[in-house]
Amino acid sequence: AYSSGNKKVTLIPGDGIGPEISAAVQKIFTAANVPIEWEAVDVTPVRGPDGKFGIPQAAIDSVNTNKIGLKGPLMTPVGKGHRSLNLALRKEFNLYANVRPCRSLEGYKTLYDDVDVVTIRENTEGEYSGIEHEIVDGVVQSIKLITEEASKRVAEYAFQYAKNNNRKKVTVVHKANIMRMSDGLFLRCVRDMAQKYPEIQFEERYLDTVCLNMVQNPGKYDVLVMPNLYGDILSDMCAGLVGGLGLTPSGNMGLNGALFESVHGTAPDIAGKDLANPTALLLSAVMMLRHMELNSHADKIERAAFETIKEGKYLTGDLGGRAKCSEFTNEICAKL
Amino acid sequence: AYSSGNKKVTLIPGDGIGPEISAAVQKIFTAANVPIEWEAVDVTPVRGPDGKFGIPQAAIDSVNTNKIGLKGPLMTPVGKGHRSLNLALRKEFNLYANVRPCRSLEGYKTLYDDVDVVTIRENTEGEYSGIEHEIVDGVVQSIKLITEEASKRVAEYAFQYAKNNNRKKVTVVHKANIMRMSDGLFLRCVRDMAQKYPEIQFEERYLDTVCLNMVQNPGKYDVLVMPNLYGDILSDMCAGLVGGLGLTPSGNMGLNGALFESVHGTAPDIAGKDLANPTALLLSAVMMLRHMELNSHADKIERAAFETIKEGKYLTGDLGGRAKCSEFTNEICAKL
Ligand SMILES: CC(C)[C@H](C(=O)O)[C@@H](O)C(=O)O
Ligand SMILES: CC(C)[C@H](C(=O)O)[C@@H](O)C(=O)O
Repeated sequence: AYSSGNKKVTLIPGDGIGPEISAAVQKIFTAANVPIEWEAVDVTPVRGPDGKFGIPQAAIDSVNTNKIGLKGPLMTPVGKGHRSLNLALRKEFNLYANVRPCRSLEGYKTLYDDVDVVTIRENTEGEYSGIEHEIVDGVVQSIKLITEEASKRVAEYAFQYAKNNNRKKVTVVHKANIMRMSDGLFLRCVRDMAQKYPEIQFEERYLDTVCLNMVQNPGKYDVLVMPNLYGDILSDMCAGLVGGLGLTPSGNMGLNGALFESVHGTAPDIAGKDLANPTALLLSAVMMLRHMELNSHADKIERAAFETIKEGKYLTGDLGGRAKCSEFTNEICAKL
Repeated sequence: AYSSGNKKVTLIPGDGIGPEISAAVQKIFTAANVPIEWEAVDVTPVRGPDGKFGIPQAAIDSVNTNKIGLKGPLMTPVGKGHRSLNLALRKEFNLYANVRPCRSLEGYKTLYDDVDVVTIRENTEGEYSGIEHEIVDGVVQSIKLITEEASKRVAEYAFQYAKNNNRKKVTVVHKANIMRMSDGLFLRCVRDMAQKYPEIQFEERYLDTVCLNMVQNPGKYDVLVMPNLYGDILSDMCAGLVGGLGLTPSGNMGLNGALFESVHGTAPDIAGKDLANPTALLLSAVMMLRHMELNSHADKIERAAFETIKEGKYLTGDLGGRAKCSEFTNEICAKL
């Protein structure tokens, strides 16, 4: 099947605007002569034996074989009891670290111009354990599960990431003053890991304090590592500082593979109208290229995208422009 | 004991900068002829029969009698197992709603100039239940407890607050897509309550989405109601938008009393040096006056404080000025 000898990459175009932004990324990759071969799979949810919707086996097999994938936004099936397929994928492949770099774009002005942070989020447990009970009528508990294994793993990922990417500091974000045992365990695991990386600065901060400081002085922070829910919150907040989820990439890193995805929604209102902004998916694809050590391709594409945004002639509606997705895409291709 | 016939108010000066900012508030209240009598109590933690530090009985009795209090920052006793006294007070008096208005000050410039939100936080349960277990070595769970009773109560408080304060909209902030049962219950309680207040707009938003939108366009929001931890995070973030915890008031509302407090720290580094900013405690005291229906006194003091900040001649160090706490205080008194 490897006619070209190129590495195969699973592509999950996704729902809503997913297909058009995926096509944009594919076009740009072709223009940049990226030596990969896409394997597009459909993840239209299929109903399993338990009556719940899940990911089709063919998609699972593809990711398991290729060990690397790019994914557009997925709709969550409507109705009680159906879990988000975005989450199902993270669980299925045990993608334990969710990495979201957030950088101020020179070409896109917001209130902030010095954001350059990376949130690293534990991606498999914590508040997302899915364990909940109704004790008696009107009394419900959700369990936040923290394990040493998962905490160590993501802590190690964070310090390795900092080291490999020439980052200076890791901040662990927690509420161990309140959740003394669970966040306390997480905190201890990161603290212990910090010992092994004396060349990287390390600090411990409360989540509320980080939220406050982040909106006043984001330049204070560098790499941040934290339990699942805190990462969900902080990564969105940081995305807000630089222009929103349409501009920020993300990667879900596992032991046996990695899945890169744009984390914005499916935007059904503009789907199919050639109006969507492919930047988040494109930058996720660039992250993927770096993960595959195709760095020069990554740099080239990123530069073309940033220049196109900076020039401002072909911006999509969400960035205040009037260009179509295809016009933005063509301009990037032209620069390559 | 009521020699003056004035209503007695418990004053908990607190630790670190607590005493000096409390003295500042007392001075300003005297200058404004506020008809209350302070009853200052000490809450230096005392060791209980269980060996843990707690609140002295005299302080508890005072709040129980007066049913209203003002509180400076308290240090948490160092050492494993000691809970925050700030939290202990909220629990002791069953202060179920934590209210934090956050408004851009005309006189103090930040990146944002249109913030005018009020976070209303469930203050007794949720992630702050304190129930945690180590299942096996290296596996810990914390329990987030959501009850219909507490959720309804805070939901009702939020809508009543909106109504009484001419607010247009209530947003419930949740992650019921993840914590379907617990946040689901909270969400349903607020949704049901919304039915009884058709004159107030109502919307449901994910926590991550609110964090993103808040840093881009805080003008979107008005009153927000949410479980405990989300309120901790969002209120600090909103404080960040308008200048930090030194400028934002808070009130803890209960069925049998209310306690108003500044939520910044004890700032031990500047304690006793006449450098602290009393604004957060003063504005909390103003909130207290409104609660006591001493509105004209509240308005007068608030106006004097805002004008002093706007003029900018007597700002404390945290606001970029060089005035002493006493100079700032005297200027407010002079305006009264
Ligand atoms: C879609 C949703 C379930 C998801 C989450 O809560 O993690 C999203 O907000 C994210 O950050 O990827
Ligand atoms: C002091 C701390 C325990 C407290 C909290 O987490 O609630 C504080 O952050 C607050 O917001 O009042």
